Amino acid sequence: MKEYDVIVIGAGPGGYLAAERLAHGGKKVLLVEKAAVGGTCLNVGCIPTKTLLNSAKLYVHAREGAKFGVTADNVRFDWKAMQAWKDEVVTKLVGAVALTEKKLGVEILAGEARLLGPGKVQVGEKIYETEHIVIAAGSVPAMPPIPGSKNNPKVVDSTGLLSTPEIPSRLCVIGGGVIGVEFASLFSALGSKVEVVEMLDEIIPFMDKELAPALRRAMKDVKFNLSCKVEHIEDGTVCFRTKEGVEAKVEASAEAAAKADLVLMAVGRRPALDGWGARESGLDLTPKGVVVDDRMRTNLPKVWAVGDVTGRSLLAHAAYRMAEIASANILEGEAAAAKGQRMRWDYIPWALYSMPEGSGIGLTQEEAKKRGIDTIQASVPFRVSGRFVAENGFAAPGQAKLIADARTHRILGLHLIGAYASETIWGASAVLEEELSVEDLRQLVFPHPTISEVIREAAWAMKL
Amino acid sequence: MKEYDVIVIGAGPGGYLAAERLAHGGKKVLLVEKAAVGGTCLNVGCIPTKTLLNSAKLYVHAREGAKFGVTADNVRFDWKAMQAWKDEVVTKLVGAVALTEKKLGVEILAGEARLLGPGKVQVGEKIYETEHIVIAAGSVPAMPPIPGSKNNPKVVDSTGLLSTPEIPSRLCVIGGGVIGVEFASLFSALGSKVEVVEMLDEIIPFMDKELAPALRRAMKDVKFNLSCKVEHIEDGTVCFRTKEGVEAKVEASAEAAAKADLVLMAVGRRPALDGWGARESGLDLTPKGVVVDDRMRTNLPKVWAVGDVTGRSLLAHAAYRMAEIASANILEGEAAAAKGQRMRWDYIPWALYSMPEGSGIGLTQEEAKKRGIDTIQASVPFRVSGRFVAENGFAAPGQAKLIADARTHRILGLHLIGAYASETIWGASAVLEEELSVEDLRQLVFPHPTISEVIREAAWAMKL
Repeated sequence: MKEYDVIVIGAGPGGYLAAERLAHGGKKVLLVEKAAVGGTCLNVGCIPTKTLLNSAKLYVHAREGAKFGVTADNVRFDWKAMQAWKDEVVTKLVGAVALTEKKLGVEILAGEARLLGPGKVQVGEKIYETEHIVIAAGSVPAMPPIPGSKNNPKVVDSTGLLSTPEIPSRLCVIGGGVIGVEFASLFSALGSKVEVVEMLDEIIPFMDKELAPALRRAMKDVKFNLSCKVEHIEDGTVCFRTKEGVEAKVEASAEAAAKADLVLMAVGRRPALDGWGARESGLDLTPKGVVVDDRMRTNLPKVWAVGDVTGRSLLAHAAYRMAEIASANILEGEAAAAKGQRMRWDYIPWALYSMPEGSGIGLTQEEAKKRGIDTIQASVPFRVSGRFVAENGFAAPGQAKLIADARTHRILGLHLIGAYASETIWGASAVLEEELSVEDLRQLVFPHPTISEVIREAAWAMKL
Repeated sequence: MKEYDVIVIGAGPGGYLAAERLAHGGKKVLLVEKAAVGGTCLNVGCIPTKTLLNSAKLYVHAREGAKFGVTADNVRFDWKAMQAWKDEVVTKLVGAVALTEKKLGVEILAGEARLLGPGKVQVGEKIYETEHIVIAAGSVPAMPPIPGSKNNPKVVDSTGLLSTPEIPSRLCVIGGGVIGVEFASLFSALGSKVEVVEMLDEIIPFMDKELAPALRRAMKDVKFNLSCKVEHIEDGTVCFRTKEGVEAKVEASAEAAAKADLVLMAVGRRPALDGWGARESGLDLTPKGVVVDDRMRTNLPKVWAVGDVTGRSLLAHAAYRMAEIASANILEGEAAAAKGQRMRWDYIPWALYSMPEGSGIGLTQEEAKKRGIDTIQASVPFRVSGRFVAENGFAAPGQAKLIADARTHRILGLHLIGAYASETIWGASAVLEEELSVEDLRQLVFPHPTISEVIREAAWAMKL
């Protein structure tokens, strides 16, 4: 008899949720984690970033309340107090995850796990036997070999920037993806002079190409350098080449008195394929990650992979869903797929917690075109919402774009920039999963007055 | 030939949206309004209330930012500036509605309309002929004949309280429905000492009976007197009798210096059935309003009624939906119903903009029981959401309750108290309209970290 039904490698969102669901389903589960329970998301990713961003939003709101009849003197933030609150939130949430696992009977083991092959995992000196293995090894920040970036104390990754002791007076962000844009927004709100250098011709690659420029314009204190390739970094100065071949520089380096001028390397994350036996175990790998099918099976029998390590979607909630699919397939076998327990990659929403927020789900207009789908679309400003106007004013940035199939009118994508975008997008998961048409969406009742009503307005703005 | 295809009586949400949709469909429309375009909702209802509540929320947030690392001195609000912003929002939104109607070719006529019978409407001296008539006469605040309330300058309705020149030092709210609770929340935040007197044994009649007490506890500065019947009002003192027969009083009357102590009469609204010929025209009426079927037809041919005047649901967005159904049935005849253009009364969400917010859709546990449906339910605190904790702390109030059919697992209702509740509820419109089961809801992907995830957690907390 094997010691465990399932060994889960990695206790980030994919790993801890798989362990929960499996234990809840009656399996004996060992959850192995080499660093902190909660993984990147909880410890150095989504949760700390959003906690700091919330404080920054409170700071901005407190300063800009006069229009709404609310004023205050000497509005200020205390970076150390913000950090302390962030640390308290992380500590308590990590504790809550560990407690949930314990209540369900999941054993948590601190250590580096090594996949030896199907049914065999080594931790330290000991070899554990198990029926199933779920790999949830996560991802690490990609650190491209830019000359001058290595061992440069002014160059940090997101983890380093989260714990910087002081607000940089100038911050250069290399990379205009979600991480880069959120940090740009955070530090810009806190008074840093921020420039973003992005190699591609637009920020946020999965954002619709009509909305991304609107987001840049809305982040009016941040300078964006697009189509710019970083060539080298000297101390705190980032040297890059524009599309036209012009050499240029962003100086994040110190003005006389600044102590903490920094360069954030935020060019993305890559699956963690080192140190746990990925290559030696016979797993099918590509540079993008562990190869899985839509039921999260790898090529090895009863070895499953979920989350960032698959490279399919580097989002915590995508990891959650993958974990649930792997768990359901482990618990129910063939019956699971018949119940819909397969990844539907196009129905994963995403959210951006910058000021303003952004979110999206499904296809962008460009992606639909690439797939040869004829689309219809409508784009409406958030100021069509009375609540948006009441809470933000008439000129505040906000835009909703809805995309549908021109022939069937089936909704293919929804993309938002503006207040509450991260919180309202989930409804579109239901809309897309249920394959609603524009006509169906028009019949849904939205509460008035809400900003969510812009989605309904977009459906009505569609020319059918 | 008739002068108009459709005459719409009343330019509130039901009337102005019907006019828009009909004009968009090619109809020649006359929209008659005796007061202000936008109706109660825009002029003296949802929009002004939510605008003031937003300012109050900014004020509270600015004062309570220390935990999140944000502080300020001398945080204050300026009631006149709050009012001015509210007036600016209302004026611009009214202008936007009028402009939309104009662009679509809707004629707006200021005056009191009178329904003479099918196809005939009188405005002033003139009689207009039309094919269809849409009645959207709205509602008025119910003013029960409580001794001492009439001609008492300290007794106001919601319209009066919105324009009060000063914050009352004490406010007594008669009625614990949505209007009463929102005003209680608003003035309590602005420093009034607030008591609510409610005749029933709980506030917010359509809120689940598990959540309503949680909402009362969360509004910790407001005193709620339940099961209390108001007997008379003397100056600013409200005298009532408790269930046990004990006589009691709330003194909203002046302490020495207070100038604006007030009693808000918020016992509900009743359909406006006076002054437009409701009784003389032969329309089927009950005291609750104009009788309509699920296609918004009255008993008179080609006379339709939408919104508050029907008494079926006194919510602006319910009026919107009724307007769309009437319009679709006018434009497409019998084909409309086949396309789903019927009212589905159980799928209308509602929202409450108090601190904290609340929202709901579908059946409460009590309502399901009344209908003889065997239910399963789960209730989870908002602190299961990392974002909620980050933005509100661990002890902040928030609760989600999900209700499903015990046999089919079909979701029957969702009820929320807590941050963003008004903005996240729309997704449940899709869930209920599409008749999703708990198992289906569990498969939807929610972005992480969001507060909307509590809905997913509730689905997983359900014992199936």
